[in-house]
Amino acid sequence: MLENVKTTPLSAYGEFGLIELLTKNIQIKNKSTVLGVGDDAAIINTEGRHQVIAKDMLIEGVHFDISYCPLKHLGYKAIAVNLSDVAAMNAHPEQVLVGIAASSRYTVEAIEELYKGIYLCCNRYGVDLVGGDTCSSVSGLQISVTVIGYAEPQQIVRRNTAKTNDLICVSGDLGAAYLGLLILEREKKVFMQNPKNQPELEGFDYLIERQLKPEPRLDIIDNLRKKNILPNSMIDISDGLASEILHICKNSKKGCAIFEDKLPIDTLAYNTAMDFKLIPSTVALNGGEDYELLFTIDQKHYDAIRQVEDVSIIGYITDENEGCNFISNDKKSIPLNAQGWDAYLKKTTTK
Amino acid sequence: MLENVKTTPLSAYGEFGLIELLTKNIQIKNKSTVLGVGDDAAIINTEGRHQVIAKDMLIEGVHFDISYCPLKHLGYKAIAVNLSDVAAMNAHPEQVLVGIAASSRYTVEAIEELYKGIYLCCNRYGVDLVGGDTCSSVSGLQISVTVIGYAEPQQIVRRNTAKTNDLICVSGDLGAAYLGLLILEREKKVFMQNPKNQPELEGFDYLIERQLKPEPRLDIIDNLRKKNILPNSMIDISDGLASEILHICKNSKKGCAIFEDKLPIDTLAYNTAMDFKLIPSTVALNGGEDYELLFTIDQKHYDAIRQVEDVSIIGYITDENEGCNFISNDKKSIPLNAQGWDAYLKKTTTK
Repeated sequence: MLENVKTTPLSAYGEFGLIELLTKNIQIKNKSTVLGVGDDAAIINTEGRHQVIAKDMLIEGVHFDISYCPLKHLGYKAIAVNLSDVAAMNAHPEQVLVGIAASSRYTVEAIEELYKGIYLCCNRYGVDLVGGDTCSSVSGLQISVTVIGYAEPQQIVRRNTAKTNDLICVSGDLGAAYLGLLILEREKKVFMQNPKNQPELEGFDYLIERQLKPEPRLDIIDNLRKKNILPNSMIDISDGLASEILHICKNSKKGCAIFEDKLPIDTLAYNTAMDFKLIPSTVALNGGEDYELLFTIDQKHYDAIRQVEDVSIIGYITDENEGCNFISNDKKSIPLNAQGWDAYLKKTTTK
Repeated sequence: MLENVKTTPLSAYGEFGLIELLTKNIQIKNKSTVLGVGDDAAIINTEGRHQVIAKDMLIEGVHFDISYCPLKHLGYKAIAVNLSDVAAMNAHPEQVLVGIAASSRYTVEAIEELYKGIYLCCNRYGVDLVGGDTCSSVSGLQISVTVIGYAEPQQIVRRNTAKTNDLICVSGDLGAAYLGLLILEREKKVFMQNPKNQPELEGFDYLIERQLKPEPRLDIIDNLRKKNILPNSMIDISDGLASEILHICKNSKKGCAIFEDKLPIDTLAYNTAMDFKLIPSTVALNGGEDYELLFTIDQKHYDAIRQVEDVSIIGYITDENEGCNFISNDKKSIPLNAQGWDAYLKKTTTK
């Protein structure tokens, strides 16, 4: 190894800082490349249908813990989170490629179980598994998925095109997946201390399912299309609402106001957050892994969006100089910041 | 973990057996999917240009050893081996997506060095990096690359379409990359025993470069096109000539005759193999990681192919019932079998 060279830990940059550092000098060379790094997916002009292409890795010990994540669920989730990236571009997925690196600790039967979940999700959403790679790893399991989706060029929705006065909408409810993780980690700790204790998961089904088996919200983009609502901007919530709305605002050069009393929080999630002595709205803002869609629409769609099931209006887009603000129940305006799940941050804090 | 269930080690199947097991029941659902699992790349009909899409993972400790593989070379190789898959379909690459999972042992500067190699290879071959994923891993470095290439539908060459009496051709020379690996591992061992010993790499430059910095043979597919030669079948040599010609024969339901005296072996590789007490033709057959193109052409192209630089005719395709045979210098016919590099085999033998 070289001596006397500058060494900066990865944690000093975090995931987004590192991506920015590594990709800032890219110059696009091919006319087929419509959009490169910087959104939920790249956009490709094939001279036929437009494609969106995204890639996500799931790493054992970082993104999942095999001691409480059944392999079939893990396979399902690995596909689902990638399909969610396609949904976030307002496109429909048709192909996936799956790469698996597994240590000798994994048996053929274990990998078959993983693939059962992969195929379950593929079949549910009409997606073809068309290729990939299967190899060994020195330790643990690494999963890498690439997804290809399709849309008419004018239907593709980016994250950098929010307009001032847009309504900010979110599908489903927020924070439950994170609380599911807290429950699973709590019960794992109890089990590690005394393996005779049975984990107490009863009654938390919804939270645990949100953590272990998220669904891509392709139903939402279909329902928006039926109502002729084309969002001005869209992103999926993997790192938490706060982190994602900040992406939209930063990339669109806008501000926003998000209202605490408008955040969709499931009752069980609310009560469980309170049991953990957490503020439910903080969990909804920063929990992450909801895989819901966050999008902004023109105000003219107000009546139409109210007829779309499972969508909440949680705020509006402002000019950039007004900043990104969270309006609490007692009408205080608090600057939003992203405390969301960060791949490097998590690594640093859990080791 | 479940008890009383059958457990089969991954090594019992090997890479190809496992892929077959996991993908045998796939039913294609989308008309955009022209070809799924089973070739160097999947084929997509975009209703515009046809695409080929491939994905390869490189795992620290399995595919590379960071103690003698400079990170810039590793980045270059990670792209090159994927571009090679596109070349093997007779297509041209235009986009890559790169996923990196790195442990905290890696610094920002190390990852930047890796990306320097990634961009060097992308720029050399006119490819855009359009997306990917950067996250942390518990241990080591995992790289996952997806590549997208383009070709006219009638230009795409598969591995299952060899014809009886086709000439079998190979680009470049064989076995050097494997010998480069042997040199690097020998010098590593010397260094581990006594860190004061300097590694003796001088004079082995060509072998080491073949191991550390392979080039995709896009020049060959361009030169074949100039001579109006469209191969009947093609594959790239990642696991060794024997393994790859067996893929072509098995998928095409053909046999073959490969001649020992026709194998292209570099002089330095020949001499180095002898020094290691290895039979040079065995190294050429089974070494792997050459990333040369192996293809079959109709005999009518005989005169034309002799004018294409850096291509050797090494045998011909036979009917299936004649089997796959290696004709040694003393005219003995030996059934070919694949002792090539296998991800699981290697893992089992090196641990």
